[in-house]
Amino acid sequence: MSVITTQKIAEHNSRDSCWIIVHGKVYDVTEFLDDHPGGSKIILKYAGADATEAYEPIHPPNAITDNLPTDKHLGLVDPNTVVKVVKEVTEADRRRQALLDARPSLDEIVNFHDFEAVAKMVLPDKAWAYYSSASDDEITIRENRAAYQRVWFRPRILRDVTSVDWSTTILGKKSSLPVYISATALGKLGHPDGELNLTRAAGKHGVIQMIPTLASCSFDEIVDAAIPGQPLFLQLYVNRDREITKRYVQHAEKRGVSALFITVDAPQLGRREKDMRMKFVGDDAGAKVQEGQSDVKKDQGVARAISSFIDPSLSWKDIPWFRSITNMHIILKGVSTPEDALLAYDAGCQGIVLSNHGGRQLDTARSGLENLIDIVAALKTRGPWPNPNFSVFVDGGVRRASDVLKALALGASAVGIGRGFLYAFSSYGQEGVEKAFQILREEFEMNMRLIGARNLGELVPEMVDASALHSHAGLTPSDNLYNSIYQPLRTAQFRDVKL
Amino acid sequence: MSVITTQKIAEHNSRDSCWIIVHGKVYDVTEFLDDHPGGSKIILKYAGADATEAYEPIHPPNAITDNLPTDKHLGLVDPNTVVKVVKEVTEADRRRQALLDARPSLDEIVNFHDFEAVAKMVLPDKAWAYYSSASDDEITIRENRAAYQRVWFRPRILRDVTSVDWSTTILGKKSSLPVYISATALGKLGHPDGELNLTRAAGKHGVIQMIPTLASCSFDEIVDAAIPGQPLFLQLYVNRDREITKRYVQHAEKRGVSALFITVDAPQLGRREKDMRMKFVGDDAGAKVQEGQSDVKKDQGVARAISSFIDPSLSWKDIPWFRSITNMHIILKGVSTPEDALLAYDAGCQGIVLSNHGGRQLDTARSGLENLIDIVAALKTRGPWPNPNFSVFVDGGVRRASDVLKALALGASAVGIGRGFLYAFSSYGQEGVEKAFQILREEFEMNMRLIGARNLGELVPEMVDASALHSHAGLTPSDNLYNSIYQPLRTAQFRDVKL
Amino acid sequence: MSVITTQKIAEHNSRDSCWIIVHGKVYDVTEFLDDHPGGSKIILKYAGADATEAYEPIHPPNAITDNLPTDKHLGLVDPNTVVKVVKEVTEADRRRQALLDARPSLDEIVNFHDFEAVAKMVLPDKAWAYYSSASDDEITIRENRAAYQRVWFRPRILRDVTSVDWSTTILGKKSSLPVYISATALGKLGHPDGELNLTRAAGKHGVIQMIPTLASCSFDEIVDAAIPGQPLFLQLYVNRDREITKRYVQHAEKRGVSALFITVDAPQLGRREKDMRMKFVGDDAGAKVQEGQSDVKKDQGVARAISSFIDPSLSWKDIPWFRSITNMHIILKGVSTPEDALLAYDAGCQGIVLSNHGGRQLDTARSGLENLIDIVAALKTRGPWPNPNFSVFVDGGVRRASDVLKALALGASAVGIGRGFLYAFSSYGQEGVEKAFQILREEFEMNMRLIGARNLGELVPEMVDASALHSHAGLTPSDNLYNSIYQPLRTAQFRDVKL
Amino acid sequence: MSVITTQKIAEHNSRDSCWIIVHGKVYDVTEFLDDHPGGSKIILKYAGADATEAYEPIHPPNAITDNLPTDKHLGLVDPNTVVKVVKEVTEADRRRQALLDARPSLDEIVNFHDFEAVAKMVLPDKAWAYYSSASDDEITIRENRAAYQRVWFRPRILRDVTSVDWSTTILGKKSSLPVYISATALGKLGHPDGELNLTRAAGKHGVIQMIPTLASCSFDEIVDAAIPGQPLFLQLYVNRDREITKRYVQHAEKRGVSALFITVDAPQLGRREKDMRMKFVGDDAGAKVQEGQSDVKKDQGVARAISSFIDPSLSWKDIPWFRSITNMHIILKGVSTPEDALLAYDAGCQGIVLSNHGGRQLDTARSGLENLIDIVAALKTRGPWPNPNFSVFVDGGVRRASDVLKALALGASAVGIGRGFLYAFSSYGQEGVEKAFQILREEFEMNMRLIGARNLGELVPEMVDASALHSHAGLTPSDNLYNSIYQPLRTAQFRDVKL
Repeated sequence: MSVITTQKIAEHNSRDSCWIIVHGKVYDVTEFLDDHPGGSKIILKYAGADATEAYEPIHPPNAITDNLPTDKHLGLVDPNTVVKVVKEVTEADRRRQALLDARPSLDEIVNFHDFEAVAKMVLPDKAWAYYSSASDDEITIRENRAAYQRVWFRPRILRDVTSVDWSTTILGKKSSLPVYISATALGKLGHPDGELNLTRAAGKHGVIQMIPTLASCSFDEIVDAAIPGQPLFLQLYVNRDREITKRYVQHAEKRGVSALFITVDAPQLGRREKDMRMKFVGDDAGAKVQEGQSDVKKDQGVARAISSFIDPSLSWKDIPWFRSITNMHIILKGVSTPEDALLAYDAGCQGIVLSNHGGRQLDTARSGLENLIDIVAALKTRGPWPNPNFSVFVDGGVRRASDVLKALALGASAVGIGRGFLYAFSSYGQEGVEKAFQILREEFEMNMRLIGARNLGELVPEMVDASALHSHAGLTPSDNLYNSIYQPLRTAQFRDVKL
Repeated sequence: MSVITTQKIAEHNSRDSCWIIVHGKVYDVTEFLDDHPGGSKIILKYAGADATEAYEPIHPPNAITDNLPTDKHLGLVDPNTVVKVVKEVTEADRRRQALLDARPSLDEIVNFHDFEAVAKMVLPDKAWAYYSSASDDEITIRENRAAYQRVWFRPRILRDVTSVDWSTTILGKKSSLPVYISATALGKLGHPDGELNLTRAAGKHGVIQMIPTLASCSFDEIVDAAIPGQPLFLQLYVNRDREITKRYVQHAEKRGVSALFITVDAPQLGRREKDMRMKFVGDDAGAKVQEGQSDVKKDQGVARAISSFIDPSLSWKDIPWFRSITNMHIILKGVSTPEDALLAYDAGCQGIVLSNHGGRQLDTARSGLENLIDIVAALKTRGPWPNPNFSVFVDGGVRRASDVLKALALGASAVGIGRGFLYAFSSYGQEGVEKAFQILREEFEMNMRLIGARNLGELVPEMVDASALHSHAGLTPSDNLYNSIYQPLRTAQFRDVKL
Repeated sequence: MSVITTQKIAEHNSRDSCWIIVHGKVYDVTEFLDDHPGGSKIILKYAGADATEAYEPIHPPNAITDNLPTDKHLGLVDPNTVVKVVKEVTEADRRRQALLDARPSLDEIVNFHDFEAVAKMVLPDKAWAYYSSASDDEITIRENRAAYQRVWFRPRILRDVTSVDWSTTILGKKSSLPVYISATALGKLGHPDGELNLTRAAGKHGVIQMIPTLASCSFDEIVDAAIPGQPLFLQLYVNRDREITKRYVQHAEKRGVSALFITVDAPQLGRREKDMRMKFVGDDAGAKVQEGQSDVKKDQGVARAISSFIDPSLSWKDIPWFRSITNMHIILKGVSTPEDALLAYDAGCQGIVLSNHGGRQLDTARSGLENLIDIVAALKTRGPWPNPNFSVFVDGGVRRASDVLKALALGASAVGIGRGFLYAFSSYGQEGVEKAFQILREEFEMNMRLIGARNLGELVPEMVDASALHSHAGLTPSDNLYNSIYQPLRTAQFRDVKL
Repeated sequence: MSVITTQKIAEHNSRDSCWIIVHGKVYDVTEFLDDHPGGSKIILKYAGADATEAYEPIHPPNAITDNLPTDKHLGLVDPNTVVKVVKEVTEADRRRQALLDARPSLDEIVNFHDFEAVAKMVLPDKAWAYYSSASDDEITIRENRAAYQRVWFRPRILRDVTSVDWSTTILGKKSSLPVYISATALGKLGHPDGELNLTRAAGKHGVIQMIPTLASCSFDEIVDAAIPGQPLFLQLYVNRDREITKRYVQHAEKRGVSALFITVDAPQLGRREKDMRMKFVGDDAGAKVQEGQSDVKKDQGVARAISSFIDPSLSWKDIPWFRSITNMHIILKGVSTPEDALLAYDAGCQGIVLSNHGGRQLDTARSGLENLIDIVAALKTRGPWPNPNFSVFVDGGVRRASDVLKALALGASAVGIGRGFLYAFSSYGQEGVEKAFQILREEFEMNMRLIGARNLGELVPEMVDASALHSHAGLTPSDNLYNSIYQPLRTAQFRDVKL
C-alpha cells in the first residue's frame, strides 16, 4: 500500500480532484461527491485534509470502505508529513467539560427524566438537537408522553405481593424486563463508546438490544461486545439495492440476531426543524447529514439525498422476499392502524411495533399507546389474545415502569425505550444504562405491588382506566383580555421579613 | 390640462374648499369629504397639500379617478412650485431598516411560521396590526389554527411511495398545489410591490391567485403581471351600486378571470380591536380607513362609513343576477352551515368557501375545518362526493401541508391560504412567496409519503381521526391558591458551576 | 333641635356611651352597637367624633335615621366648635389621582374589558377588592365568563341585513337593548355619584336599571334621578322584619317600579376572601361591613352580623305574601335548577334570573348560561317557549353583545349586566355608562348582521353550537419534569441587531 | 442500672461495636444495625455519641425499647461526663425563626391553603419535603385536588335555612363535623408537640382523630392526651410479625379505640422523589428513614428496609384473623375499585376508605372522589344506600367544606383530612387546628345554606353535577411556534405616569 505525503494530498482540494484522510488512510472521493447522502459540501470542507473527526461520530467505521470502490483507496498517509495540530479547546468545549464535572452524581439520578436533563446540558448543541428533535410542530413527540398520563390505574388490594416478577420472554428470548432497547442512530454523538454502552449493559443485566442500521458503531463491533448467548435484535432501513440489504440481513442472522425489525414508517425522513436549524449555527452540517438532510438544493427534493440507503418503494410485496432470505422473526416497526396490523398478521409477520418513530416522522400521528387499543381489538378477530405467534410492541414516550405496565395491561407484549437509554449513556456512559435498568426494576417492583399484580400475566385490562386515551381536547383559546384583568387569589401574606 | 401652483393649492385647505395632490395631480375633494369611506378627517389632514404618501398603500391607483367626477380633476401641479421635502427618517424607520438588515437569510426559513415571525418584526406597527388583527377576543382566529391540531393522522404503510403527486385541478384550472392564494387586502402595506409579488410567483410556479377587491394594486396591474394563460380568480365585495359591481365583474371576465368568489360573510366589517387601537398611536388613521373603521362618530354606526362599497343588503335574490351578468364560476366565500351550503348548491353556484374571513368577522364562529364535516355530509345528500359540479374550499389557519392534507381527506377540494403568503412577501417579497411554495412542496412530498397516499385521490377519510374536532373543552378555571403552594418537581440538580 | 359642641360629643367616646357625628348631626348609638351589621368595632373607632367619611360610601343616606329610634337623634353639631381638619393627602390618594389623570381617553375604550382594566387601576384597593371579589376559590366567577366562550356561532348568510333591530320589551317595558342593568351594591365606593350614574345614563338611552337594596344612594334619590316614564326594577334582600320589607316594596311600587327581583341565592352572604383579606390591610373594616363580613368574633358565625337585614328563613311560603302586598311583577333572582324554575312558574312568579350572584355566593355553582339549557327545556313542558307570561333572564360573566346574543338564542328573554356597568362608572362616571351602551349598540349591530338575524326574533337555537357548554374538562395535571426538559421550538432567529 | 461515662461510650463508635445515647440512656445497637429500617448508616453517624436529637422527631418514644433486647440496654450516661454542647444556630435555623416571627396572625388565616402556605415557609426543608411529597410525577396528588373542582353544585333555593346542622355520627361515634382527622406520620417534624396538637384540639371540638402507626408521639401519649370519652380511631400498618400487630391492636382496643383502619394500599412504600432528593442535601437521611427510604443499596430493593414493619404479604386471608383478635370496627383504608369494595363488604368489614394515600403510593391512580361513584353504585347491589352497616369514607385533596359536601352528596359517609390538619399544627400548633375547625364550621354553615340543605340527610346526589368527574382531558400539546408569534390582545393603555 502506497504512502502519500500530506503535501501531496493537500493539492487535491477541489471538486475537480478531492482527496480526504480518514483514520490515517487516503481516499479519492471526487466521483463520490454527488452520491454522498449528506451532500458534497460537507466533504469539500475537508478536501485535501483530514476528515476523521467530522466523519467519526456520524458514520459506521466501514461506511467509506463499503461504499467507495477499492481503486479509490489510495493508500496510507505518510506519518512523517503529518503536522500534529494541537486541538484548540473552544469555549463550547470548555463549557461542556465544566458541566460534565458538575453533573449530579449517579446516586442522585432517580428517574429517566434526570438522564435527559443531564444530557441536555452536557451534550454538544448539535447532538442534543439531533437526538431531541422531532418533526414539524413536535406535536406527536409530546403526545407520546401525554398519552400515558391519560391512562389511570385501578389498583387491587390485599393480594400477597411479597414477591413480584416482571421478567418475560420477548420473541422467544428471555428478558429480565418487559422492555427492550429500541434502535436510535448515531450513538457516538452522545458518548465515545456509542452503542456499545447499551450492548455491554444489556448483556450484564439480561436486557435485549435492538441494533440500529444507523449506529455509529459497526454492526460487528456491537455483536462482538455482546456476551455469549446475549439476545440481539436488528432494526433495518431497507436499501434501494436489495443485495446490500440481503447481505446485511443474512450476516446478522449468521451472527446470531434472532429478530428483524423492518422500519416501515420512514420511506422518507421527517423534517426535524430543530435539527435543520442547526446547520445555520456555525458552518458544520453535522448530525443531520447521516439521515439525509442534505445541503443539496432543496428544490430538487431530499429524495435524492437519501436514495442510496432508504427505499421509498418498500411495500407489502417485499415481505415474501424477506421471508425468503432469512429465518429471523420479522417484525414491522411503525404500524399505526388496525388495517395494517391485520395485513402484517396475514402476511405472516411475527409481530409489529406500534410506533411513530419517536415523533420524528409524521407529525400529528397518534401515539402508539392510543393505537394499541384499536389494534388489539382488531387482532382479537384473528384469535385469542395474547397470541403466541404474534407480538405487538409499543414504543414512544415511555419514561416510567408505570407506563410500561399500562401498555402491557392493554395488551402489548413488551415496550421499547429508545431515547431513555440514549440519554442514559450520553450522560453517564454504560453506568448510566445500568442505573436506568435499576430504576426500572425498582419502579416495576413498587408499581406491581401497588397494583396488585404479582407477575405480568396478572396485568389485566381491568387494572387501567383508558377511557380518556382518545380524548384530545381542544380548549377554547384563552381570553387574554379577561385574564389580564383577573387578579388571582393569594394566600395570607407574611409580614416583611429580612432573610 | 391646467397647471396649478402649490401656493394656489395651499389656499384650499379647509372643509369649505379642500384640494389635495395625489401622484402629481390636483383634485377638489370638498364635496367628496362626507362620502369618503375612511371619513373626512384623514383627508382634511392633507387639505391643500400632497396626500400621495398616505394615499398610496391603502387605495388602488385608480380609486380617486374612479370615484371623483371628472370636473373635480383640476389639473397638474406646477412642478416648479414643488418644494422637495427631504423625508425625515424617523426612529421607527431606522429601527425597521435595522431589522430588515438583520433578517434571517431565506435559507433559514423552514416553515410558514418563520415568515410570520419575520413580518412581525419588520412590518410597520400599523401594517402588522392591520394584517394580524381579528375581531373581538380573537377566539376564532386562534381556533382556526387549533382545529387542525385536533385532527390526527392514521398513516398507512408499505405502499410504494417512490413518486407522489400533489397537483390538482381547481375549478377546471390546473394547479401545481392543492392550495390557492386567498385574497387579502392592502398588500402595499407589507411590500412596495404589493399583490404583484403573488401574481409573479404564482405564474412562475403554477399556483392560482385570487385577486382581492381591496388590493393596493389595481386589478389591471395585477392581471398585466400574469403570464399568458395564468389562471386567476377574483374575490368580490359587492357594491351597493350594482352597476359598479357589474362593470368590475364583466371587466374581470373579459380579462380572463375564470371564477368569482363572492364574499358573503362581510355585510359589515368586524371590529378588529388591535387595529382600532392603532388610531390612538400617533395621529394617522392608517390602515383601518380602507376597510371602513372611520373616524366618523361611532354612535351613528360604521354602516355609513362603508356604505359606498359593501352592501349589507346582499342576499340570495342577487345570485340569479350574478348568473345573468357573467359566465364565470360563482363561488360563495364565507359559508358556515350545512343549511347555507345546500342553498348555494341549489342556487346553482359552483362552490363555496368554508371560511370565517380569517377570524376577522364574527368572533367565536367555528372554524371552516370543523364545519367541513357537517357540510360534506349534507352535500352528500345531493349526490356522490366529490361532486364534479360543486367544490368545497376551506381557508383559515393553514400553516402546513399537513393541514391541507387533513382538509382534503375530509372532503375539501382545495385549501386557501391568505395570511401565509401575505407574510411571505411582507418579509421577503416575491422570493418569499416562491420559498413558501417550495416549503409546501417539500412538506407535501414528505407527508404524502408518510401517510401512504401517492396522489390526492388516495387521501381518504380513514386516514384521519377527526373525532376530537368538535371537542371545545372548557377547563375548570385553575385553582390559583393550590397552584401557588404546589411546588413542581425538579430533575436532579447540577452543582454550582462557573460558565 | 338642640346644638351640641364637639367637646361635649368627644366625651361620649366609649362602649358605655357612644355618640357619633354623621352629616352634621349627632346620634347616640350606644344601644345600637351590638345590632350594627358591621359590628361595633368600626363604630367605636369614631366614638365621640365625626364618622361621616367612613359612613358615606357604604350606607344609604337614610340608613341611620331609618334604624335608630328618634330619641337617639340628639341634635346638630355646633358648627363653631368644629375644627376643620385639613384632610391629609395620603400616598395612596396621590397615586390614585395620578392614575386618574393618566387614564385612557374615553375614545380609546373599545370594549367592556377596558372599563374593568381602568377601574382596577383607579379604584381604591378596598373598593376594587369589594367589587371584584367572589367566593372561595373564585371558580364560578371565572366559569361565568368561560361558559360564553364554549358556545360557538353558526352564522347564516345572504340575508338582507341593511337594518337590524335589537330593541325589545322586558317585563312589559320597552328597552333599547336586550340588556338591563343588574343590581350591584355600594356604588359610591366607585364614584361619588354612585348609582345615579346608571340612572341618568339609563334614562337617556332607554335602558332599564334594577335598583339595588344595598345601593349607596337612597332609593328615592335614584328614583328622583329618573326621567318621567323611565322604567325601573327593584332588587330586594328580604328583611327578617317583614314590615320593613313591606314598606320598602310598597313604597317602590308607589314610586313606579314595575318589577320586583327577589334575591333568593343569598340566605347568607358568601365568603369573599379577597375582600376578607382587606381588613388586615390598614385598620379599616371598609366595604365588607355593609354586606355583613363583620369583625365580630367569627366563631359565633356571621349569621348574627347580617341578621338585621337578610332573612335566611325566606322560603316558598313567602311568595303568596309578596303577591298579597304588591302588584309588581315578581321575579326570583338566583335560580339554578329546573326543579326550582318549575316551582317558581307554578308559584305564579313572572320570571326568574339564572344567576349565581356574579360568583359571589356558592362557589363551583354552574353558570347561568349552562343552566339555561336545562331550564328552558323544563319550562317547555309547561307550554310553548318563549312564554309571554314567564321570562327567563341570565346574568354573570357578560362582556360582549355576542354573549347576550348567545343567551337569547338559547331562550333567554334578556340579559343582566352588573359589574360591567359598575366598572364603567367607576372609571368614567355617567359618560362611561353611556359609552358602554354605545359599545353594546355597535356590537349588536355588527354581530346581528354577521349572524344573519335582523331582529331578536330571528335568533334561533340553530344559530349556536352549545354542545361544549357542559364540557368541564379535567386536564391531567401537567408533567413538570417532562416540561422542564422539553425545549420549545423557535422560529428563525434574527442576527444580532442594535435597536 | 449501671452508669457509663461518655468517654467509655465514645470508644464504641464503629460497626464492630456501636453504642449510642438516646434520652440519657445507653444502648448497644451493634447487632441491630442491619435490621434498622432506616439503614445502618444513619446510626453509625452517631456511633459512640448522643443520637437523641436525630432520633426524637422520627421515632415513637418507645421505638428503641420495643425493638432492642433488654440485654442491649446498657444503662445511664454518667451525667458528670456529659459536655454540654452549645447548639449552633445555623443560618437555616435563623431564617426559619425569622419566618416564624413574621407569620400572618391566625386571624388572617381564612382557608386551609393559608396553613399550607405558612407551613411551606416555616417548616425545615426536609420536613416540608417529607410532608408535601407524593410518588413519581405527583399526578395523583394534584388530581385529588382537581377532582373536586370538576364537580359542580346544583343549589336549591327558598328553603328555610335559618338553622343548618352538619353534625353526624361516624362508625357509631358522634362527630361535630362530617370530617375526621386522617393519619399522617411523623408529626414532630412539624411541631414539638406532634400529634398531641390534634388530640387536644379534637377533644375540645368533638372531632375524631385517627391515630397513625407512624406517629412521632407514642400511642399512649396520644390516648393520654384525650379527654374522657373522646372517640379515637387507629390506623394500622400490619407488621410482618403478627404478634406485634396483635399486641398493638388489642392494646388499642383496651384503651378505648373503637375502629381499626387497616392500611391496604401500602404493601411497599411509594417512591417520593422530592423526599428522596433531600438525602443529597446535606448529609442527613432525615425524615425518609422512618417510612423506609433507606440508604441501603437500592439495587437490593427497598423491600428489605421496610421488612420489619410493613408486611407485603397482607391479604384477604388475614381479615378473619383480625376479626378474631378484636371487636373494633374494621375498615380497609386504600380501596380503589368496586371489586375490592364488594370483597370488603362480603368479608364482613364495617367500611372502607377510598384513598390513594394522599398520592404518596401509586401514581396516576384515580382519586377517591372519582372512585366513589362507581363504588357506591356497586354497593347498592348489596342493599339500600346509605347502608347502616357499611361506611364509605373518602380522603385526599380536601381543602374546603364544599369538597366534603360534594363527597357526601355522592354517597360518602364522612371525609378524612390529613395534610390539612398537619399543616395547621405545623404552622400554628393546637390553635391552628382549632382555627381549621372554625373555618370548616363557617364554610359548612355558608355552603349548606347556599345549597339549600339543612342537614346532611338533605344532601342528595341531585345537588351536584358530577358528569365531568371522569373527564381527564388530554390537550393537544401546544403549538409553540404559533404561540410565539401570536400577540395577545391588550386593554386600553394608560399614559406614562410616574407613581
